[in-house]
Amino acid sequence: MGGEALRVLLKHPRAKIAWVTSRTPGSVEQVHPNLYEAGLNFVRLEDAGDADFVMLAIPTSATPEIAERFLAAGSRVIDLGSAFRLRNRATWERVYEQRHPQWSLADEAVYGIPELHAARIKAARLVANPGCFSSAAILALAPLLKANLVDCERLIVDGLSGTAGAGADLSRAIHHAEIGNNVVLYNVVGHRHTYEMEQELSTIAGRQVRVHFTPCYIPIVRGIVDICRCFPLKPIDRKSALELFREFYDGHPFIKVYDQPRGEGEAWNYRPYPWVSAVAGTNYCHIGLDIDEERNSIVVLSVLDSIGKGGAQVAIENLNIMAGFDRTDGLMDRGFHP
Amino acid sequence: MGGEALRVLLKHPRAKIAWVTSRTPGSVEQVHPNLYEAGLNFVRLEDAGDADFVMLAIPTSATPEIAERFLAAGSRVIDLGSAFRLRNRATWERVYEQRHPQWSLADEAVYGIPELHAARIKAARLVANPGCFSSAAILALAPLLKANLVDCERLIVDGLSGTAGAGADLSRAIHHAEIGNNVVLYNVVGHRHTYEMEQELSTIAGRQVRVHFTPCYIPIVRGIVDICRCFPLKPIDRKSALELFREFYDGHPFIKVYDQPRGEGEAWNYRPYPWVSAVAGTNYCHIGLDIDEERNSIVVLSVLDSIGKGGAQVAIENLNIMAGFDRTDGLMDRGFHP
Amino acid sequence: MGGEALRVLLKHPRAKIAWVTSRTPGSVEQVHPNLYEAGLNFVRLEDAGDADFVMLAIPTSATPEIAERFLAAGSRVIDLGSAFRLRNRATWERVYEQRHPQWSLADEAVYGIPELHAARIKAARLVANPGCFSSAAILALAPLLKANLVDCERLIVDGLSGTAGAGADLSRAIHHAEIGNNVVLYNVVGHRHTYEMEQELSTIAGRQVRVHFTPCYIPIVRGIVDICRCFPLKPIDRKSALELFREFYDGHPFIKVYDQPRGEGEAWNYRPYPWVSAVAGTNYCHIGLDIDEERNSIVVLSVLDSIGKGGAQVAIENLNIMAGFDRTDGLMDRGFHP
Amino acid sequence: MGGEALRVLLKHPRAKIAWVTSRTPGSVEQVHPNLYEAGLNFVRLEDAGDADFVMLAIPTSATPEIAERFLAAGSRVIDLGSAFRLRNRATWERVYEQRHPQWSLADEAVYGIPELHAARIKAARLVANPGCFSSAAILALAPLLKANLVDCERLIVDGLSGTAGAGADLSRAIHHAEIGNNVVLYNVVGHRHTYEMEQELSTIAGRQVRVHFTPCYIPIVRGIVDICRCFPLKPIDRKSALELFREFYDGHPFIKVYDQPRGEGEAWNYRPYPWVSAVAGTNYCHIGLDIDEERNSIVVLSVLDSIGKGGAQVAIENLNIMAGFDRTDGLMDRGFHP
Repeated sequence: MGGEALRVLLKHPRAKIAWVTSRTPGSVEQVHPNLYEAGLNFVRLEDAGDADFVMLAIPTSATPEIAERFLAAGSRVIDLGSAFRLRNRATWERVYEQRHPQWSLADEAVYGIPELHAARIKAARLVANPGCFSSAAILALAPLLKANLVDCERLIVDGLSGTAGAGADLSRAIHHAEIGNNVVLYNVVGHRHTYEMEQELSTIAGRQVRVHFTPCYIPIVRGIVDICRCFPLKPIDRKSALELFREFYDGHPFIKVYDQPRGEGEAWNYRPYPWVSAVAGTNYCHIGLDIDEERNSIVVLSVLDSIGKGGAQVAIENLNIMAGFDRTDGLMDRGFHP
Repeated sequence: MGGEALRVLLKHPRAKIAWVTSRTPGSVEQVHPNLYEAGLNFVRLEDAGDADFVMLAIPTSATPEIAERFLAAGSRVIDLGSAFRLRNRATWERVYEQRHPQWSLADEAVYGIPELHAARIKAARLVANPGCFSSAAILALAPLLKANLVDCERLIVDGLSGTAGAGADLSRAIHHAEIGNNVVLYNVVGHRHTYEMEQELSTIAGRQVRVHFTPCYIPIVRGIVDICRCFPLKPIDRKSALELFREFYDGHPFIKVYDQPRGEGEAWNYRPYPWVSAVAGTNYCHIGLDIDEERNSIVVLSVLDSIGKGGAQVAIENLNIMAGFDRTDGLMDRGFHP
Repeated sequence: MGGEALRVLLKHPRAKIAWVTSRTPGSVEQVHPNLYEAGLNFVRLEDAGDADFVMLAIPTSATPEIAERFLAAGSRVIDLGSAFRLRNRATWERVYEQRHPQWSLADEAVYGIPELHAARIKAARLVANPGCFSSAAILALAPLLKANLVDCERLIVDGLSGTAGAGADLSRAIHHAEIGNNVVLYNVVGHRHTYEMEQELSTIAGRQVRVHFTPCYIPIVRGIVDICRCFPLKPIDRKSALELFREFYDGHPFIKVYDQPRGEGEAWNYRPYPWVSAVAGTNYCHIGLDIDEERNSIVVLSVLDSIGKGGAQVAIENLNIMAGFDRTDGLMDRGFHP
Repeated sequence: MGGEALRVLLKHPRAKIAWVTSRTPGSVEQVHPNLYEAGLNFVRLEDAGDADFVMLAIPTSATPEIAERFLAAGSRVIDLGSAFRLRNRATWERVYEQRHPQWSLADEAVYGIPELHAARIKAARLVANPGCFSSAAILALAPLLKANLVDCERLIVDGLSGTAGAGADLSRAIHHAEIGNNVVLYNVVGHRHTYEMEQELSTIAGRQVRVHFTPCYIPIVRGIVDICRCFPLKPIDRKSALELFREFYDGHPFIKVYDQPRGEGEAWNYRPYPWVSAVAGTNYCHIGLDIDEERNSIVVLSVLDSIGKGGAQVAIENLNIMAGFDRTDGLMDRGFHP
């Protein structure tokens, strides 16, 4: 996550990197071979000087104290971890299985989805950058819940993630030999991101919602696909649903409502739905959908890069908003194909 | 599918390959480099002689006529395609977008899931081998529906398939450059396997069920993971649910109810759920599950190889049953790790 | 190749896309999901109007006539195919197994490696963009041959390519199910790129060289690794060799001579050599090397993206040079990690 | 390596597993999900009882003492590690950077390639199972060196390995996020397997040979491809070379000399060379070759599974020979396609 933020910030037209910390000193390019000749060296946290904005990507338990220190020194803080994402203290402490040492900060933090909270992000001292699965699911379901169109008790999300979303720590489950031909299911019920989804979607719906969320790792490196399914309170057709999404995200530069017509022949028939590889490395989220009229259900497909729009790049989008930069500064690169 | 059947039949203790057909004559090993020195050559369909059992893996529209021909000659037929899987003619003709030329055969065919229909398979002239996603989902949900434990209207299945499941035809969507870093969603609503699931699960439940099914291809070669979610009519705990599955599949050699305890430390914490790579190349289906007590939902995870237990190998299991062989003949190989 | 050129040109600060042709009309984004909302539509070749520069990525046999047409209309042409890469007509006609209809164009064309031929590229009407394996090998071996340090008879190159390098046509060998767990060796001797390598390296060496080249596809999407081995005429140490490469490429913005020190501990010990994933999607070529002093051989490792520095992006670098733009315009993006 | 040996031994018709040791007690199936219901539990090394044969897959430095203990107790030992593979002590101690505590065992050990040393393996108390890259290269080059056909100074081997060949320890270089789209080059000169290749090939050639070997990891799980290149002392054609290989390996059940004719059309033109996926999971080694007559060089392509024929399965082949079983017992499974 830190490496991705550096990659993007190095070409940002207005932001400037003051320092980068690591527990292991050395040149950044030894850890990140793509940051060759960037001239960056790690400093220790205690040697980090003043900065207008501080991005944190550190263990949850260490975050509140360090965030507090930088806030006290006058920095504004964007936390890429999970210390400040939930509004309910009891839920947070149960889910993260620890006491929160500085709840006033969590109370103050703004949940960093720009499509929902841009005005509050602009004014925030502390932004809690959202979880990757959460971003994809919240963006996928928000328009339907806002319009009060679906059963709030049965929102179902199956999330498929590339291995870059798992962070830099080594783990057997995402060692290549284990996952190269495999799907790794984990936290099949009660994954922590569930609570972010429920919190944000409940606010939008104006009532308590239930999200049934199951994540897995698949053998791609970058990208998340959230397959979201919900049940309409009354029938809705595909065209109206797409129109609803387009209106909801009108003016938001990084959301693309995806609707390729089904054409004739080979070149056309496989890409009516979003393509996660096309948003890898970017700050875009592509959203598609389909309606099962026979069974009265809606499937919304939401794709983004877990360390792009689902992580480091949305953190820079938040930084842009907080700093008064153009929201798209440094973030307009397209993904690859193939 | 044909190549996988040959691979397994070549080492079967009792079955013998009489002939293999192809539209392109030549040696089988030029198409299947793993069948080196097997001494097999393709013959044309019109040159195929008598055989006790015939396996068909040919286009749907051509199947009924060819099946009829072999049945008339006294062979018993296992069809790996989709010509005979549905019991309702109107549904079949709508879903497959064609008139069925020989519906009496579809009427006669036995749906080839041995765990459900062993006695009828034993006596069948014609077996309709099930779809791969269907097998995984039906095996995952049958015990809960049999016990009348869950809401029949909202059975949700998200299916992740390797590319071997797509058959031998070239297609852009599963070309390596397209899918190597990607997830290919297709037929997001109304996939044909949906109707097999609904047919078989309705029979088990004794009432009409609704399956909300979405498939995708992921960049693994072999294997399917069906993530199945349903909603209990009354609370059930994980231990009881596992016990229910174990009883349901008692005596069935190829179903493993998977329940690794969550232990301490790295080696233990990631494998409570089944591992699709461990069943690749085999006739096993591993099933695991978890209960979200907070939200009252059940997730059942079912993994199998789309051309193994989901295709060619279950066809051989059916052959074993039909021929009076031991049901496990030729099918007891374990998968790999890693 | 065409899609990659469009992706980069869309954000180029000075170049403007006049038109894009295809045999199949329609919107570009239906073919390239990453070019969403780019507003590009394919036109037919016969409807293509005037343009200062034309990039061709079409079948070899059709290229000369079309190149001639655009040159006659006053455009300057960059051909991404292989019609004009070789200087020797007999070799070309033997290797490409066809008569060349317009050899005067091949005679005129400049081989488009900017590190070797920048001045001639600047003045060229017609640039023959190099083959991907060829670029990597020529860049890896040029400094050693220029300095007359190695045996010219035994230059060995094993090339590993991702599947994006194979172009857009479907082919069984790079279908995911075939190559997902595989290495596809092809044209193990006498691959066409061999002749480009020999031509360019012979010119540099001032004598005829022999390149023993074997390519293969491996299951990555983007990127080429050329493992180049040669035999020194007299001993040379690693430090001197690296220095030689640094001097040779001094002032060339897209070549990085890679030399991470071997450090202590896990984070350091695996990345002394270039990382192909770090140049995927870019116009960079990273080069590393090592010397086997015990056996008196040199291994040079050269990595680039077959459709980046090995294809569409070097074509834009050539365009920049021809047009008098800054050589790096539009091309300075870094790769990803991970 | 241990898991693969267990998988194969569990279905071996004559061998019986007495015990399996691990530093971490527990059930084997918690570590190897494919060994479900095998009824195996790890014991501690100190609790291991008598056994006719002992396979060791433990750290090199610990091996001599433990091998000695089992040999003293009357077991015959097959070591899958590298403690006993080299005949020259000074070379071993330099290459493995440690003093060898029990050189008499290394002196006694037989290098376990059955195609070369079957008679001595049959009589051995201690077999040193070969390295995976070494097996592939030695099998690829032995016929040419035996016949004194090629320059012994310039044997070149580039080895591409799947990640299962790296063993069970976690390492950043083969973490999925790092290698999923990458090639990891390491020990580019002087890799330890070089010395095994030189030792065995020198014996065959009757003179000192030089092997220039470079390994890399690629993102497949199982399998090794050794691309071997050498220079004929006098011209040889492809047909004669293939015949030489066939004669050399006549009667050896696990070597297949691969020579698919180049046919017409799509289905034929890509598989003249061996397919590593077709030997994954097996004890087979497929060998193909081609001759560059224009440049007078030979390319031999050798594929095997690093933990099959290159590891655990050849260890069982050695066990079969030592125990007087049929050499193919338990080892005749074919690989998959796809």
